[in-house]
Amino acid sequence: MKSKIARQAVVLLSGGLDSATVLYLAKRRGYLCHCLIFDYGQLHKKEIASAIKIAKACAAAYKVLKIDFPWKGSALIDKKIKVPSKISRGVPVTYLPGRNIIFLSFALSFAETIKAGAIFIGAHAQDYSGYPDCRPEFLKAFSKMAKSGTLGKFNILAPLLHKNKSQIILLGKKLKVPFNLTWSCYRGQILPCRKCDSCYYRAKGFKEAGVIDTLIK
Amino acid sequence: MKSKIARQAVVLLSGGLDSATVLYLAKRRGYLCHCLIFDYGQLHKKEIASAIKIAKACAAAYKVLKIDFPWKGSALIDKKIKVPSKISRGVPVTYLPGRNIIFLSFALSFAETIKAGAIFIGAHAQDYSGYPDCRPEFLKAFSKMAKSGTLGKFNILAPLLHKNKSQIILLGKKLKVPFNLTWSCYRGQILPCRKCDSCYYRAKGFKEAGVIDTLIK
Repeated sequence: MKSKIARQAVVLLSGGLDSATVLYLAKRRGYLCHCLIFDYGQLHKKEIASAIKIAKACAAAYKVLKIDFPWKGSALIDKKIKVPSKISRGVPVTYLPGRNIIFLSFALSFAETIKAGAIFIGAHAQDYSGYPDCRPEFLKAFSKMAKSGTLGKFNILAPLLHKNKSQIILLGKKLKVPFNLTWSCYRGQILPCRKCDSCYYRAKGFKEAGVIDTLIK
Repeated sequence: MKSKIARQAVVLLSGGLDSATVLYLAKRRGYLCHCLIFDYGQLHKKEIASAIKIAKACAAAYKVLKIDFPWKGSALIDKKIKVPSKISRGVPVTYLPGRNIIFLSFALSFAETIKAGAIFIGAHAQDYSGYPDCRPEFLKAFSKMAKSGTLGKFNILAPLLHKNKSQIILLGKKLKVPFNLTWSCYRGQILPCRKCDSCYYRAKGFKEAGVIDTLIK
């Protein structure tokens, strides 16, 4: 019974293909997965519905958490800031300060409460070129902080950290991730815009991996 | 202009006398204060109204953030867990895993967005006997994590960290904190219950400081 409890995991699930792959990987590793999905006022709300579909497809438990970001300043939550139609350099306008820190903090609270032994996050190499809260040194510092600020015992796992998009797609394919259910586009329209950073890297990743993107085909 | 921006602070304001004292202290130190007040489903909702009154009395800006804790397990948010009427040893049943971590994470996001140079929290000596997310080593680890996970430059300040309740009350008196507006009781009734941990330490603190508690007198 004890080992069963230790094999519970909290998985941060956004609805994109990275976190979907992480969920399927955690399940493959034998974890009983509890997904956390955040409704934080993102303009591409569509990803929430995608996340729910993915959790269901993976037969994982999930909770949708509604949180407030009453300050603006990121294209993810602020209509006045346009999502650019060409690839950004440096920190993208979609950067929302503290987003992953907040998500991981809720995951800590949940994991400690249900005595889950692991927290999974889909941060990876391509992200941390622009987002500080995806960098390996951040995740290390967060783990250390979690050890002193909680009474829980858990590992924070980012199994995609050193992978690029095509490697993630190949892993996802192997794990039978339903790519058709995932959503990456920062613009929450009926179809992916195919112009934003997120669409660009997704298309490039599928092309490099030689895999068909079942979302758009 | 630059120095004026750097003198902005985000203050975590709960409605209790510790964070009220910290707010008045930050203002005295010349910071333009932006208070964050959390509506997280606490059963003693009354503290939210108190926090708003305190922010107004201090002429500070404030935001009330509504966040979800759909998991239970703490007497602060779970009606099924009774707030004990005698002093607890060890970790109190009012401990809510990750609460300060989440609050501070939102403060990071806000501070980075408005370019505030400081974040104030009212954690102190008495708290960290029971709550892991009030300990000095936690705050140190959190600051380090914040440096690697954000692009902001701010100090996380806990000026009450090594003070006990009576010392905080004496400081609050000096700063003219309106104690009558503060709320400490974990039970959100019309009057403080005078039995819970929080009421006990408040009464003891006022007695030791030789100060009259204007909330109940």
